[in-house]
Amino acid sequence: METVNDKRRMREIKVVERVLSVNARMAEQNRRRFAEKGVFVLNVMSSPGSGKTATLQKTLERIMPEIKAAVIVGDVSTTHDADRLSVTGAPVVQVNTDAFGGDCHLAAHVIEKAADEIDLAATRLLIIENVGNLVCPAEFDTGSNKNAMILSIPEGDDKPLKYPLMFSVCDILVLNKIDSMGIFDFDVPALERRVRVLNPGILILTASCKTGEGIERWTAWLRDEIRHSRQQ
Amino acid sequence: METVNDKRRMREIKVVERVLSVNARMAEQNRRRFAEKGVFVLNVMSSPGSGKTATLQKTLERIMPEIKAAVIVGDVSTTHDADRLSVTGAPVVQVNTDAFGGDCHLAAHVIEKAADEIDLAATRLLIIENVGNLVCPAEFDTGSNKNAMILSIPEGDDKPLKYPLMFSVCDILVLNKIDSMGIFDFDVPALERRVRVLNPGILILTASCKTGEGIERWTAWLRDEIRHSRQQ
Repeated sequence: METVNDKRRMREIKVVERVLSVNARMAEQNRRRFAEKGVFVLNVMSSPGSGKTATLQKTLERIMPEIKAAVIVGDVSTTHDADRLSVTGAPVVQVNTDAFGGDCHLAAHVIEKAADEIDLAATRLLIIENVGNLVCPAEFDTGSNKNAMILSIPEGDDKPLKYPLMFSVCDILVLNKIDSMGIFDFDVPALERRVRVLNPGILILTASCKTGEGIERWTAWLRDEIRHSRQQ
Repeated sequence: METVNDKRRMREIKVVERVLSVNARMAEQNRRRFAEKGVFVLNVMSSPGSGKTATLQKTLERIMPEIKAAVIVGDVSTTHDADRLSVTGAPVVQVNTDAFGGDCHLAAHVIEKAADEIDLAATRLLIIENVGNLVCPAEFDTGSNKNAMILSIPEGDDKPLKYPLMFSVCDILVLNKIDSMGIFDFDVPALERRVRVLNPGILILTASCKTGEGIERWTAWLRDEIRHSRQQ
């Protein structure tokens, strides 16, 4: 028997599908625009507090000024992360999604508008620091060339079971705060197995912004991807 | 000048407002229904991996069978958390939001339907373990009597700046994984100041599921709230 709840659910799912299909179209527009300007776009996603901003600070310190980078930072509120990243000298555009009804992700049309504030002709790498959330950012294509996910050790090795889409859409997974392995019960091989079932081709690295472990390998990957995109 | 983007944004905000006002109405219905059955409802929210399930396991072990408890667990995917909580003997209803378009929160109508699967007449405490996310769960009232937030030390003391609504709607904040203070740079007094600006009346506790610290105080708070709700 179809209930009122089932009807509501079907209606909700249709609205969600329409929103996502409009978003996918706009993401393709973004991708074409960035490609025309020769900009490589990396979309970085994670839970709140997994170390996105700290990792990006370290990254910008190492690759700039050789690689001209700019950042779009998404948060529901505040310019806290933008302030931290501006220290590196990279142009930073802060998007506060409370202007968009408190969105928990950066939709493609939000990126389109934020990109208007960046001198794309003078930019080789555009980093999108998405809103801290493992659900919706995975559903909303931004128009990026590559997606990176940061998972910190304290969050636990069960996350691929609970947020499978996030692990499926990413090209690289950084296991961050690896220096805290001693005090958390985190099974790296089990995590890797769970991730590879969803996404066999993903690259998995370990890192720590505190000790610096893994940061070289991460920036080497990023340099390679930028170089590779230029040759295409 | 009003742009296409501004129009889209206004339309989006209107849709969000309509969804939230329908949700608020349904949450009130839930609240009346639970009150009529004498069920106290606690909604627990946090980031992914902050320790919701572990804390609830410890809680159920201590308060059952004296207090008859049931749990509604929200996740995008899997029955992982429900399996962990079922061990305590409490009836557990798992909601997988991928059936609702991959929602990143538990809306009031989802709680309404999940509650149909619980014997409310035989339940004194209903715990809602919300989807791991600091954004949308704060916006969607479930019909709970009290809201609890768990913030783990590794997530950082800047979270109230970035997710103000979450800290505003909660009655109690549990600072979890306090045993990891030694290796993370977390300023508890600064965190407390940031939280109290948003929510002067909130109760803030520290806890660790690993060492057991703070769990007694947390369950004492819960017992008091349940007792108090009975007297009303």
